Amino acid sequence: MRIDQFPAIRQFNFADTLREHSRSRPNMIASVDGPERLTYRQLDCRVNKVADGLRKRGVGPGDRIMWVGQNSARVMELLLACAKIGAQLCPANWRVSPPEFADLVHRFDPKIVFWQDIEVGDIYHVNKETWKTHDRQWVQHDGTGADCYEALIESGEDHDPETFVDADTPLLAIYTAAFDGAAKAAQLSHNAILLQALLSARGQAIDETSSYLMSGPMFHVGVLMGGFAAFVAGGRCVYVRRVDAAELLDLVEREHVSHAYLPGPVVDQMMKLDAAGKRDLSSLFPSRDLKDWAPPLAIPEHAPMRHHMGQYGQTELMGSVVLAWLGGSGAGRPGPFLQIRLLDEAGREVPDGETGEIAARGPLVMNGYYGADAVNQARSADGWYRTNDLGRRNPDGSLSFVGPKATMIKSGLENIYPAEVEACIRALPEVSDVCVIGVPDERWAQSVKAVVVLNDTAALDEHAVIEHCRHAIASYKKPKIVAFAPALPRLPNGFVDRAAVDAGWGGGGYPKVG
Amino acid sequence: MRIDQFPAIRQFNFADTLREHSRSRPNMIASVDGPERLTYRQLDCRVNKVADGLRKRGVGPGDRIMWVGQNSARVMELLLACAKIGAQLCPANWRVSPPEFADLVHRFDPKIVFWQDIEVGDIYHVNKETWKTHDRQWVQHDGTGADCYEALIESGEDHDPETFVDADTPLLAIYTAAFDGAAKAAQLSHNAILLQALLSARGQAIDETSSYLMSGPMFHVGVLMGGFAAFVAGGRCVYVRRVDAAELLDLVEREHVSHAYLPGPVVDQMMKLDAAGKRDLSSLFPSRDLKDWAPPLAIPEHAPMRHHMGQYGQTELMGSVVLAWLGGSGAGRPGPFLQIRLLDEAGREVPDGETGEIAARGPLVMNGYYGADAVNQARSADGWYRTNDLGRRNPDGSLSFVGPKATMIKSGLENIYPAEVEACIRALPEVSDVCVIGVPDERWAQSVKAVVVLNDTAALDEHAVIEHCRHAIASYKKPKIVAFAPALPRLPNGFVDRAAVDAGWGGGGYPKVG
Repeated sequence: MRIDQFPAIRQFNFADTLREHSRSRPNMIASVDGPERLTYRQLDCRVNKVADGLRKRGVGPGDRIMWVGQNSARVMELLLACAKIGAQLCPANWRVSPPEFADLVHRFDPKIVFWQDIEVGDIYHVNKETWKTHDRQWVQHDGTGADCYEALIESGEDHDPETFVDADTPLLAIYTAAFDGAAKAAQLSHNAILLQALLSARGQAIDETSSYLMSGPMFHVGVLMGGFAAFVAGGRCVYVRRVDAAELLDLVEREHVSHAYLPGPVVDQMMKLDAAGKRDLSSLFPSRDLKDWAPPLAIPEHAPMRHHMGQYGQTELMGSVVLAWLGGSGAGRPGPFLQIRLLDEAGREVPDGETGEIAARGPLVMNGYYGADAVNQARSADGWYRTNDLGRRNPDGSLSFVGPKATMIKSGLENIYPAEVEACIRALPEVSDVCVIGVPDERWAQSVKAVVVLNDTAALDEHAVIEHCRHAIASYKKPKIVAFAPALPRLPNGFVDRAAVDAGWGGGGYPKVG
Repeated sequence: MRIDQFPAIRQFNFADTLREHSRSRPNMIASVDGPERLTYRQLDCRVNKVADGLRKRGVGPGDRIMWVGQNSARVMELLLACAKIGAQLCPANWRVSPPEFADLVHRFDPKIVFWQDIEVGDIYHVNKETWKTHDRQWVQHDGTGADCYEALIESGEDHDPETFVDADTPLLAIYTAAFDGAAKAAQLSHNAILLQALLSARGQAIDETSSYLMSGPMFHVGVLMGGFAAFVAGGRCVYVRRVDAAELLDLVEREHVSHAYLPGPVVDQMMKLDAAGKRDLSSLFPSRDLKDWAPPLAIPEHAPMRHHMGQYGQTELMGSVVLAWLGGSGAGRPGPFLQIRLLDEAGREVPDGETGEIAARGPLVMNGYYGADAVNQARSADGWYRTNDLGRRNPDGSLSFVGPKATMIKSGLENIYPAEVEACIRALPEVSDVCVIGVPDERWAQSVKAVVVLNDTAALDEHAVIEHCRHAIASYKKPKIVAFAPALPRLPNGFVDRAAVDAGWGGGGYPKVG
């Protein structure tokens, strides 16, 4: 469909950002990935070819493709190509077990999966025989043959048919645990991405002179928010396949990196490597005194968010949308284009000061989980999207985040849902009951601890439980500590009393934002 | 229609901003107008009552109302009430002649006209008898009877039915000369207003702590841009009916005004009045040294726009949308959610460096002029809105504004179109030919000068020409100087050679932005 009616003049989607940059910032550097440096005009040419290559492989409006690899400029190229086509990209978590990976692919049902051999090829190879039975294409992005990414580009033409793509349709899909332990892909629209980019750009002081180091995993919305902000502002995105302190030092210096998503331990390594202070890191760390620096966001001193870190958000809202730099106390106030209510189970607003479920309305809200109509319906029936998170209104009208309706463990960057780990351990025949909690961890915020009740006659040690989990679920979700107990404390309704387990077995340090 | 489908969850219109402020900033001051100070929650209550009062008078989705008065908090109240209803408000220029006023009302065909008696009541009273023949309601906003504004509010209930209103529909209408000298109302959508507010907020460093002095006329988009930005950010709008230096001094001090739209001569008067420096004006003028201050925008030193004033925009794009603070040279680069092309008459992009017509696409583009389908169609047939302005691309991809396709005169805040003044003078039987030009004016940028050719036997002096215009068109459009000539220089195609008239009769100083 061509745009040829007056109302369509007011359309603008994610790909239109690239089209405009290609005219108004043709020779500015858009993308740096290893030795490859692309200007905005060059990026637009490559994206035209990728889009044409995808079309020739049958990808059309509404279709889905998946990326299972580490960070790469190609994730952005594929996303922009999808934006031009009206298709959808899911950059999937490669830190999953082979059965989990098979499940992610099966659920999202992509026409093409872009996979990576180096370091993370196992999840592909183990499942290879299964794939053959499906009508699904596999493209290795780090190979050189006919089935590889560069061959797909070469098959496409540098021509932009400027197909009409509605900015309210989904473009990006990000798997989240969706609070019940079963991974679901939250579908995010062009508008959600663009509006979050504007919000993040102001909060993080991102403009066309910014250089954003894509150093966190690109399947996390917290990383993408800043990267998209840099792209929309006409700045530079610098991609690293994996976090390596020595390479980061080189990049910060050479690309004048101004913004990054860097876990604290990585910055410690960088500083140790350059203890002599010979590298020019002033674009990212004007002073080497990191005392007042709050990982993982490295942003300029004059960025509003630097001084007001409180925030609330979730993948389903395209990231942080209630922000302390916008004012108020706790998590702060909602950004523009968003309404927030705190609701009780019946959908009525709770009185100020009382805890209610955070509900949202506005273009930042996801277009639902892929293939989960019943859940989507239940979470949005009255026109307000239920976040499954709890909040409270402060006396000044701003919001505080109370916690997830279901408890979550935060280890490093990862969200871990006890329900999922418990289900894994419960599958062991020796186990009669289990409760998984988070215990405080100096380095990673929390570690996973399982409190296990064995059947009368069973014998099972800590090592056996951990090894079982290591093979069944993502390694980072496995318990680090296993304790055994004769029984678990229970509430009058029969449910496990998680607060009592926390109190009795050293739990704590659960994520609180705001 | 109620929002009850999942996609509608992603809707957000201008009134939703107020709904959210009422929850998240309930006790912050939204509006100051004389002795009346309203918090956001109080403003939301009043707007609910205004909306209900309008509904009870028959205003529904798609209907239009008009404001013909000086600045007032009620303009914003009416606009927000229209946003809740799905109706449209036109704040009309009250500096027009009675026949022009009759024409504006006739063309926009509002269900209700809100008029003001003090100072500007003449344009109503002169036409009063004509109005009676129409099915149109008249509400005096500065009276106290049953047909007055406060009575309308009292007739409404503080209840918000939260009717669904599409953010892509028009909300605000602003009359512009539309480049052919005939006033047309540019219809601007919720989205255009909201996105411009975000852009202006960043450029002018507006946030919830800002206090914006609405000191320019509220029928000008350049004034509204900043006011809307302050409202959307949750800041304070301070309204003044007319510009009075003594009152402005009081307000700046009392309301900690941080932003204002102030013509240079007004600031001069303020400084003269407080030559002793006894007033605390530090919120607006941290230093009294006005050397580096660029009227009419008074914005903080740390605002990006303060240091890069270049810009291009027009009412039909909801104000300035190409901005030097976004980068580049000349007028700068387009903001987010906007594509700009430079086109030749056939609709092809002109080569870089050559002059072409500026064409735009994105949600900032107006929803067309009201009741001008043929013009709208001609200006947008291929999906790109033609601005009727000329631009050129700089080597770095940014844009320079070359000038209007039709020459315009800028006197103070007002755009004056020679074609309109010429038509007025040409109506005199003594006149055989006329060319209206702008001559440089130290105080107001330009003054209007008419070069008149009389019929052979006619006798007419400067005073007669000026007096004729004073009564036929808005006073500010009348020529300040009239010169008489035996003939006008002409181009080979028979048109008046405006450049030659400029050169021969002292023309110059035409507005150039960027």
